Amino acid sequence: MADHNALPLVILAEKFASLPGIGMKSAQRLAYHVMSMDKEAVEDFAQALVDAKTRVHCCKICQNLTERDICPICDDEERDRSLICVVESPKDVSAFERTHEYGGVYHVLHGLLSPMDGITPDKLRMRELLERVDEGGVEEVIMATNPTVEGDATAMYAAGLLKPLGVKVSRLAFGLPVGGILEYADEVTLYKALENRNYM
Amino acid sequence: MADHNALPLVILAEKFASLPGIGMKSAQRLAYHVMSMDKEAVEDFAQALVDAKTRVHCCKICQNLTERDICPICDDEERDRSLICVVESPKDVSAFERTHEYGGVYHVLHGLLSPMDGITPDKLRMRELLERVDEGGVEEVIMATNPTVEGDATAMYAAGLLKPLGVKVSRLAFGLPVGGILEYADEVTLYKALENRNYM
Repeated sequence: MADHNALPLVILAEKFASLPGIGMKSAQRLAYHVMSMDKEAVEDFAQALVDAKTRVHCCKICQNLTERDICPICDDEERDRSLICVVESPKDVSAFERTHEYGGVYHVLHGLLSPMDGITPDKLRMRELLERVDEGGVEEVIMATNPTVEGDATAMYAAGLLKPLGVKVSRLAFGLPVGGILEYADEVTLYKALENRNYM
Repeated sequence: MADHNALPLVILAEKFASLPGIGMKSAQRLAYHVMSMDKEAVEDFAQALVDAKTRVHCCKICQNLTERDICPICDDEERDRSLICVVESPKDVSAFERTHEYGGVYHVLHGLLSPMDGITPDKLRMRELLERVDEGGVEEVIMATNPTVEGDATAMYAAGLLKPLGVKVSRLAFGLPVGGILEYADEVTLYKALENRNYM
């Protein structure tokens, strides 16, 4: 937006444009849309931004995002704590929960190994995973990272550290399209991939 | 997002999804992205939302969005006040300003006539336009609404009211692709359309 636009609108458009997948044209449209919203709705939106950032943090056990100390899944007595599904991000937990078929718990790594980009094991929540398994009670760890180079490398790396601890380590079945993104898989495919997991 | 997600994240995703052109999947991604931003950046974003809504309003003269009483264009002594370019929305003012070729002033209608959708002349800033012209000093009004059914109808309607006031009324040349959206025209096309305007 050029100088002739009201400055607060220019600033808002720049904020929108800084978000992933939103270009300057869309950002301008969104800024103008905000102008047409009720004042209350805009204030609610602003509060939602701050709330999400300040009230949400990582679960002490599984590292998934939550507003409590322990997330509802880790806190659920009916979940099978002997089975841990390891995923890249909180989005992947949502994807598995939508299948309504998985009864175990999760561990969110918050990334995948990618030494070229400087993402080494210490940048992930790998240590927390090893500690959980080391504490005992875990029978199987399912490496449910994306079927990509980084996802496979992360699964292999984790398997190498986990197996000496005496747990079974499995990998999601390649029912998923290779090179695809886990988050976009449909519920049935995802469940099949879970059911046909291969032991490593 | 389902129940297992942290509530503030669910709320934030819903806010993003309420914006035009953002689906639930994108909204979730944006909400997660906010989690990865600095606390300060999130607070700035929230403030930008509220600022845009509370500090920006319509210019008393041209009805364009501004944070002052009179917008910088209406306030610019070098602009030709005898020439008014009438547009649908503030986005269109930005489009014309990007041509760096237009030296007149603007009038923003904040919509187009569409009786089927209940948008009658009293819902637009039509009265304000007639008052401006009636005050004198205006020689020509360029109807620069989109070359669509609603844009043409609005231009025709305005022309019918403006011509009795003794001003020339012109319409943008149909150098614009018919049925197209003004906002997406490139600078040269837009300037050609302005230059070749037809008197009504």
